Amino acid sequence: MAKIRLFIEHPLVPGQAVPLDAAQAHYLSGVMRQRAGDQVTVFNGRDGEWLASIAQAGKRGGGLDLIRQTGDQRDPPDLWMIFAPIKKARTDFIVEKAAEMGAARILPVQTDFTNSERIRQDRLQAHAIEAAEQCGGTYVPAVDDLVALSKLLDGWDPARRILWADEVLAGPAETLAGLPAGPWAILIGPEGGFSDAERKRLSSLPYVTRISLGPRILRADTAAVAALALWQSALGDWR
Amino acid sequence: MAKIRLFIEHPLVPGQAVPLDAAQAHYLSGVMRQRAGDQVTVFNGRDGEWLASIAQAGKRGGGLDLIRQTGDQRDPPDLWMIFAPIKKARTDFIVEKAAEMGAARILPVQTDFTNSERIRQDRLQAHAIEAAEQCGGTYVPAVDDLVALSKLLDGWDPARRILWADEVLAGPAETLAGLPAGPWAILIGPEGGFSDAERKRLSSLPYVTRISLGPRILRADTAAVAALALWQSALGDWR
Repeated sequence: MAKIRLFIEHPLVPGQAVPLDAAQAHYLSGVMRQRAGDQVTVFNGRDGEWLASIAQAGKRGGGLDLIRQTGDQRDPPDLWMIFAPIKKARTDFIVEKAAEMGAARILPVQTDFTNSERIRQDRLQAHAIEAAEQCGGTYVPAVDDLVALSKLLDGWDPARRILWADEVLAGPAETLAGLPAGPWAILIGPEGGFSDAERKRLSSLPYVTRISLGPRILRADTAAVAALALWQSALGDWR
Repeated sequence: MAKIRLFIEHPLVPGQAVPLDAAQAHYLSGVMRQRAGDQVTVFNGRDGEWLASIAQAGKRGGGLDLIRQTGDQRDPPDLWMIFAPIKKARTDFIVEKAAEMGAARILPVQTDFTNSERIRQDRLQAHAIEAAEQCGGTYVPAVDDLVALSKLLDGWDPARRILWADEVLAGPAETLAGLPAGPWAILIGPEGGFSDAERKRLSSLPYVTRISLGPRILRADTAAVAALALWQSALGDWR
């Protein structure tokens, strides 16, 4: 099996050549020292995983020939990850971890105590792609642009439940085993926590379930992985 | 409540002054701009959490006066985290996360596919202390020096079970609910996985339980948090 896994936007159809853009061709030939005839694994988020052979890879782009399909398309469960970005490195980690852990969509939100007024959506999306390439997934979660939490909740479909990892609840972690299946979103707060107004609103929403993540206060990136692990093992594709 | 939490080695006994070394005094006065009379929270890993007032903090050290105990000593469950250090940043993260998630001891191991032949134990221990200060814990896990996995297993007490997160098992995550309580260790492999010899030995040990962490291949730092979350919620102090 080829060691390099590459996400490409193009449809993967037997017999059709797959074009490489200049960045992908440079990555394969310049960075990874691959030549024509070398094999790579590709996926596009829709058509499963394929073994492909490099037809050409140069400075202005290149192309792949598909050899055979090596894996089915595997979509994650219908789980979103909502988080408040703070420091760059930890924001990158949350996106990476959410992609690895099988979130279907990643939504950075601005909360009352979030300072960052903008994010680099393109950079975060690139992190999600890289995580999908690394973890053997065939799906890349979309990373949304930053939106205010209040606005997100204004337009929220109540059919999607929210699992709110509330750092104020420093008790035992509730078991998620009894919660209903279906569409969910995990909400992780910023490291300063939520404002009183936000807490009041979240507590009043019938589709929000508040859980504790144990007796210690977790950093946002730790809380994200821990909540994803509990959800995936109780309600997701780790069952 | 004071915002600054400080780990100190000294016993915390009512009425006794607590000396600060030069680094701690510099942190309080030079970095955090605290002055005599300002309050901090301190813990030493044994005597719970205390509110203290700065008596003096200068270039050559200083001292604290204990005001009152504000929290009981809370030790984590008897859970060790064994992992193979690779890249510096991810090694730091694993130590930080293990401390936050309530591991009682952190054991870096050298495996057949681990390149790093030494670690900076003092630096990793400092990360564990910082994580304990941040997460509100009153306990700091000891970080061992690097030891070969084979040697660690040679001297292993079979009364301590090992939960081996095996990245080759890409299926549903087993439920940990039926596993016995008592002393445990979580074992996370290096990103290249374990060698055949290591896999054979681990598989043959009666105290090793092999689990999957879902259908995607997780990075070592993600796997560490995910396995800790599952263990803590099933067998640890998140129950």
